[in-house]
Amino acid sequence: MNKQSLFENIKRKKSFLCVGLDTDIKKIPDHLLDDSDPIFAFNKAIVDATADYCIAYKPNLAFYESMGVKGWIAFEKTVNYIKENYPDQFIIADAKRGDIGNTSAMYARTFFEELDIDSVTVAPYMGEDSVTPFLSYEGKWVILLALTSNKGSHDFQLTEDANGERLFEKVLKKSQEWANDEQMMYVVGATQGRAFEDIRKIVPNHFLLVPGIGAQGGSLEEVCKYGMNSTCGLIVNSSRGIIYVDKTENFAAAARAAAKEVQEQMAEQLKAIL
Amino acid sequence: MNKQSLFENIKRKKSFLCVGLDTDIKKIPDHLLDDSDPIFAFNKAIVDATADYCIAYKPNLAFYESMGVKGWIAFEKTVNYIKENYPDQFIIADAKRGDIGNTSAMYARTFFEELDIDSVTVAPYMGEDSVTPFLSYEGKWVILLALTSNKGSHDFQLTEDANGERLFEKVLKKSQEWANDEQMMYVVGATQGRAFEDIRKIVPNHFLLVPGIGAQGGSLEEVCKYGMNSTCGLIVNSSRGIIYVDKTENFAAAARAAAKEVQEQMAEQLKAIL
Repeated sequence: MNKQSLFENIKRKKSFLCVGLDTDIKKIPDHLLDDSDPIFAFNKAIVDATADYCIAYKPNLAFYESMGVKGWIAFEKTVNYIKENYPDQFIIADAKRGDIGNTSAMYARTFFEELDIDSVTVAPYMGEDSVTPFLSYEGKWVILLALTSNKGSHDFQLTEDANGERLFEKVLKKSQEWANDEQMMYVVGATQGRAFEDIRKIVPNHFLLVPGIGAQGGSLEEVCKYGMNSTCGLIVNSSRGIIYVDKTENFAAAARAAAKEVQEQMAEQLKAIL
Repeated sequence: MNKQSLFENIKRKKSFLCVGLDTDIKKIPDHLLDDSDPIFAFNKAIVDATADYCIAYKPNLAFYESMGVKGWIAFEKTVNYIKENYPDQFIIADAKRGDIGNTSAMYARTFFEELDIDSVTVAPYMGEDSVTPFLSYEGKWVILLALTSNKGSHDFQLTEDANGERLFEKVLKKSQEWANDEQMMYVVGATQGRAFEDIRKIVPNHFLLVPGIGAQGGSLEEVCKYGMNSTCGLIVNSSRGIIYVDKTENFAAAARAAAKEVQEQMAEQLKAIL
């Protein structure tokens, strides 16, 4: 999916919500545990319930890997289900991979060739040759970690060099030598507030994937105030705040209501640019 | 496995070789492709052939993930085979994971609980709470990326802060607040030469996992000269230089010979401390 199509979807649905599929067997409703594939059954119900209100889904690989082979089967089935039934949804494999060139090439093959997913999150620590193998697939995206939503983001990402440039700023600048805003996005945590202003100075046109509203405490209003650009430029993720609001047989309807509520807030914010 | 046991194994076998299981369906001998699980068949043969000469195995997750469900099955079978037949081998899941706390906890559960692997490689970019969930398992190890073997390691890892401290040095220092040399090791590429001297000033007693000899061009002698400490302190990995030296039906014997050759060089180097 290219940038223009993504923006068209955002305009049409008045939403830039990504639903995070952090599906944990220990947190899904009990009645699903009798299903032959409870993880997929949960995801299918969540996707069917929320697709009207979001433009992206982000399965978090950790949650599937923790279940071994069963988890991988559920992951693949989920991706295929979304692609077949909701082909306008942008799919993000939240994997935070990054390794030496020949290894990153294998990860790219997995996500882009085998699974035909739109994008994958990548960690920048190992530099250019760990990222570029993901960039050789037309229409596919790298979403590079820049300034993450967690407390530990302060440990290294804010380190200033001799010129006062912080590490996340260096990542934003350097990586623009590898790809433009048609192939690269950045992860910026919703908890980072006004840092969005500094980030927009460096990447005015890129899409940003923004985790951290909801359970992690980030504010949608603040993110939009400092981070939105003329083509929206934001994909805001919510996981726990949508998929786990209810643990009864009513979970899907509750997730739908939660997604609708966020979408309505987003429609309000989009008035600034539409 | 604790640090003392690891050193005992090194002394007994006169080896600090780790064989990297970067098993690629496109590179294994043709005759194995008829097997019901060619990846596992290859790994089993390689492990049986090389176990006398190494003290660790490092399956690289990317290679297994690229085969989807089949790959995960082969990965799990490989780990279980090593654990059952060669329980003195230290197993490294080369995964380079690292995410927000609740997600890293899921990865830790996968590798340490589900699979009972000894150690996992972790990327430091997201800081403390992305690493500490891996540290709550007794006898299990985090192997944190410090100064990697690839060209891109120069992009960010060498960035100096206002005091002249490079990012990889900050990672080494900061992470010692999270765990000591009984739970943490560091990845330092064999291609980094004299940087080992600087690294040993910061982490004199830690084990280092050293990729990059063989195909990537690093020198074993140089690594030992600048990196070895009184308990060896080195686990040196070779992947392609051992597992792919021969593509015929003779592949396992050839891998054995290649491993033996490296082990003999290592025995020579170990004379300095034994």
